[in-house]
Amino acid sequence: MRRFAADRARRAVAASLHGAASRSAAPSPHAPAPRHPASPVGAAAMAAAMVRTMSTTAAGTPPVSVATINPKVLKCEYAVRGEIVTHAQNLQQELQKNPESLPFDEILYCNIGNPQSLGQQPVTYFREVLSLCDHPALLDKSETHALYSSDAIERAWQILEKIPGRATGAYSHSQGIKGLRDEIAAGIAARDGFHASGDNIFLTDGASPAVHMMMQLLISSESDGILCPIPQYPLYSASIALHGGSLVPYFLNEETGWGLDVDELKKQLEEARSKGITVRALVVINPGNPTGQVLVEENQKKIVEFCKNEGLVLLADEVYQENIYVEDKPFHSFKKIARSLGYTDDDLPLVSFQSVSKGYYGECGKRGGYMEITGFSPEVREQIYKVASVNLCSNVSGQILASLVMNPPKAGDESFESFMSEKDGILSSLARRAKALEEAFNSLEGITCNKAEGAMYLFPRLHLPQKAIGAAQAVGTAPDAYYAKRLLEATGIVVVPGSGFGQVPGTWHFRCTILPQEDKIPAIVSRLKEFHEKFMDEFRD
Amino acid sequence: MRRFAADRARRAVAASLHGAASRSAAPSPHAPAPRHPASPVGAAAMAAAMVRTMSTTAAGTPPVSVATINPKVLKCEYAVRGEIVTHAQNLQQELQKNPESLPFDEILYCNIGNPQSLGQQPVTYFREVLSLCDHPALLDKSETHALYSSDAIERAWQILEKIPGRATGAYSHSQGIKGLRDEIAAGIAARDGFHASGDNIFLTDGASPAVHMMMQLLISSESDGILCPIPQYPLYSASIALHGGSLVPYFLNEETGWGLDVDELKKQLEEARSKGITVRALVVINPGNPTGQVLVEENQKKIVEFCKNEGLVLLADEVYQENIYVEDKPFHSFKKIARSLGYTDDDLPLVSFQSVSKGYYGECGKRGGYMEITGFSPEVREQIYKVASVNLCSNVSGQILASLVMNPPKAGDESFESFMSEKDGILSSLARRAKALEEAFNSLEGITCNKAEGAMYLFPRLHLPQKAIGAAQAVGTAPDAYYAKRLLEATGIVVVPGSGFGQVPGTWHFRCTILPQEDKIPAIVSRLKEFHEKFMDEFRD
Repeated sequence: MRRFAADRARRAVAASLHGAASRSAAPSPHAPAPRHPASPVGAAAMAAAMVRTMSTTAAGTPPVSVATINPKVLKCEYAVRGEIVTHAQNLQQELQKNPESLPFDEILYCNIGNPQSLGQQPVTYFREVLSLCDHPALLDKSETHALYSSDAIERAWQILEKIPGRATGAYSHSQGIKGLRDEIAAGIAARDGFHASGDNIFLTDGASPAVHMMMQLLISSESDGILCPIPQYPLYSASIALHGGSLVPYFLNEETGWGLDVDELKKQLEEARSKGITVRALVVINPGNPTGQVLVEENQKKIVEFCKNEGLVLLADEVYQENIYVEDKPFHSFKKIARSLGYTDDDLPLVSFQSVSKGYYGECGKRGGYMEITGFSPEVREQIYKVASVNLCSNVSGQILASLVMNPPKAGDESFESFMSEKDGILSSLARRAKALEEAFNSLEGITCNKAEGAMYLFPRLHLPQKAIGAAQAVGTAPDAYYAKRLLEATGIVVVPGSGFGQVPGTWHFRCTILPQEDKIPAIVSRLKEFHEKFMDEFRD
Repeated sequence: MRRFAADRARRAVAASLHGAASRSAAPSPHAPAPRHPASPVGAAAMAAAMVRTMSTTAAGTPPVSVATINPKVLKCEYAVRGEIVTHAQNLQQELQKNPESLPFDEILYCNIGNPQSLGQQPVTYFREVLSLCDHPALLDKSETHALYSSDAIERAWQILEKIPGRATGAYSHSQGIKGLRDEIAAGIAARDGFHASGDNIFLTDGASPAVHMMMQLLISSESDGILCPIPQYPLYSASIALHGGSLVPYFLNEETGWGLDVDELKKQLEEARSKGITVRALVVINPGNPTGQVLVEENQKKIVEFCKNEGLVLLADEVYQENIYVEDKPFHSFKKIARSLGYTDDDLPLVSFQSVSKGYYGECGKRGGYMEITGFSPEVREQIYKVASVNLCSNVSGQILASLVMNPPKAGDESFESFMSEKDGILSSLARRAKALEEAFNSLEGITCNKAEGAMYLFPRLHLPQKAIGAAQAVGTAPDAYYAKRLLEATGIVVVPGSGFGQVPGTWHFRCTILPQEDKIPAIVSRLKEFHEKFMDEFRD
């Protein structure tokens, strides 16, 4: 009914805009396909939006309104920067105007994996090299040695030699600078113990555009499905929605530490197929986001076999590969697993996503990243190359940084010791913070929380009293969103409700990063506890 | 017929892959929309591709092939980095292996507006500031003053103060850092003499992602049309194809120096509407790409009125706003024109695209740019913001550079004189190169060429003998592509055939940048002449 009304509203707008040539005209050979997706905006909201819309044509109707834009855009959601964050930004402005107006003195953004926004310092060596590459004229000056380490200078020279004409301001090859891709491939080979080729690397502005590129390639319509974990990082649901595909969920098992069960994959695959969905790919996020689990080798082998047998592309989100906080679970790339099973480039299409935003370096603002694609035919690779070409190339500083993080200083280099001390300092502190926050959550009534073995997040489960659920429903909000809003308003701590990632229906969670600086953790824990106890007292059944 | 066969091939693959659950199953409520677009890949090519495809499922069929990927991707074309460029790259490799093997000693890439790849040096002041922002620790050291100008140091401080927590490595606000957007808005206001707001700026990784974002918003299906100039920059045709819309062409008038005639706009708009197309937006590229014309104020006013009356979004590609080589045609932004007509933010949705890749600075590798959006309702802006959020933010170095180019050094600043000398040197040299190449083209038999009043290109017309056209047809190639290939093979000069941009049917052109360094122009001209005369002699009717 709602959908019908929305369609009618849309047709009315189109008709008034364009008379006989509207969408309601008789179908021509190029007539639009019927619009399947139920828009999340109801007819009433649309009508209201039309009235509010400012620009109008001579005829008085708006050229653009939520009733006429692409419904896939309306459908897409991205909770990590959603409503709760907008609310937090408003509170922050309030605090600036009137510091005494709220029961806290700062907003703590635990909604997003953005380490440097919370005070983490960049790794010196990486920044030295970037700074030199941005202003290569420095390399010819003797004074430069007073400001930069000698191996950073040496590395900047090496990088310039890899850039045709040393032109750091030129568009590069659409896949990125060949010499840098070769360095990345060498880093991958060293990590995995298996061959990697720079020809298979596509450098991108962070991992997100790479994910979009693959979704664009694989999705033609709603009948194309992508298997995604639930909970998932909402880039995937957003990208699938924007490209008009179907998200085929598989549930991670919270009881077994967010375990990934291949029987669950099979069940969901079969169910999707029975509905007429052609499942094209499987997304695996390892280490997990928002869940923090690290997969073990045996499990990964089964996942590879599953993709091989079912003819699925394996889309491996491996951006947290350096963020591991447990001794007994080393990171294994899916490509390494596939090669160790004897599968070659001929057997299995596999994409590995990597980003400079994560790791110990956390260089989110640099927007560097890559995907390594193997197992695609030359014809399909050509299509991927073409799509990359339309955007010309990713930013060259991000390309350089991606090559650096895959090939950091080595023992014997001048910067090696200070580099290792920065790296270890960050990673060991993150491990301590993950532990402290996990313990704090588990100490609270009605909260259970799996360990963060890796990545940058905890995803605690809220076992809320019925009265709290009722209070949330009374204001038309999901219970975890209600909890997150109350938490923000009481403490200034911003977390993302579990509904933004997906969860087993009837369960409630939130995602909280482990990224506030270590000296702030005790205060955060005590604010959390105080808020939570009051909340439970208020709503205890 | 071809389309039918292709569909059949596609269905066969789907059926063999997924049995009963294939695309040929009875439509479910989520069944795919019928696939309209005629894929450029014929059934025979598809069958061949299937055989060549490497990875296969247990059942022996490939998980991904050109028969199963998104047909919109297949349909998209981007000639600027197309076949001719791949051919040039292969020749370059040949030259490296065997320098004597070809009749020239280097490849001259005149296919793409990429100034620094051809030897243009970056503007010192901009690079100094970027270098300091990449390694802010330098700002505390006295030695830094020996290497950087004092106003660059001062500017870097100012920029850091605008970045929350001075965290150059953090994700920024999804629209970009607020303080930098405010600086850009101040630059726009100073340029136009009308108010601009940082809230209307979306910083992006070059202009291309901004164009995609708007196409994604405006296009729901093939029945949504975008008016585009012919010839056009193929980003537009590629983006419209990727988003599944219809390009509604309007032809620029070569006879009047690539004039933009509003009657032609009206004619094409009506024709599109009569076919059931809802035209959503008008793209204007000013200064023109590939055509180099600069619009005059009176013409721009008519265009604005046209958009206002017809209810179209005006998408103004203004990335060449600083590249103007004639005295009598200053650049006017479309926003300035609209405001000077008395139209406010309430009257007309308008988007202006700008990029750090163009201008005199030509910083293509930095991937900085922005769009300024005005005249959209808060509801629609919220949707644009959401799509920007999914990709988190554009790269911060590119953001910084965008703020710098919109606010370069001012009279009195330490760097001002050297900055102006670099800027004027580049722009006056570009003007001379444009003139020299235009004269060279016009001196040749069977070539006519309009002046490049702005931008970075000439788009000469080839009046080819019938015999040459026949020779091209004999090898299954468009005549201008045939000419461009012969030119490349004889001289090493890479140009893009007019068919990549669109042209009046039966006319032939190519796009050639004016970017080779000035000392190379005489040699290029003589190589061009020599080739062209031989070509004409070979094919004279």
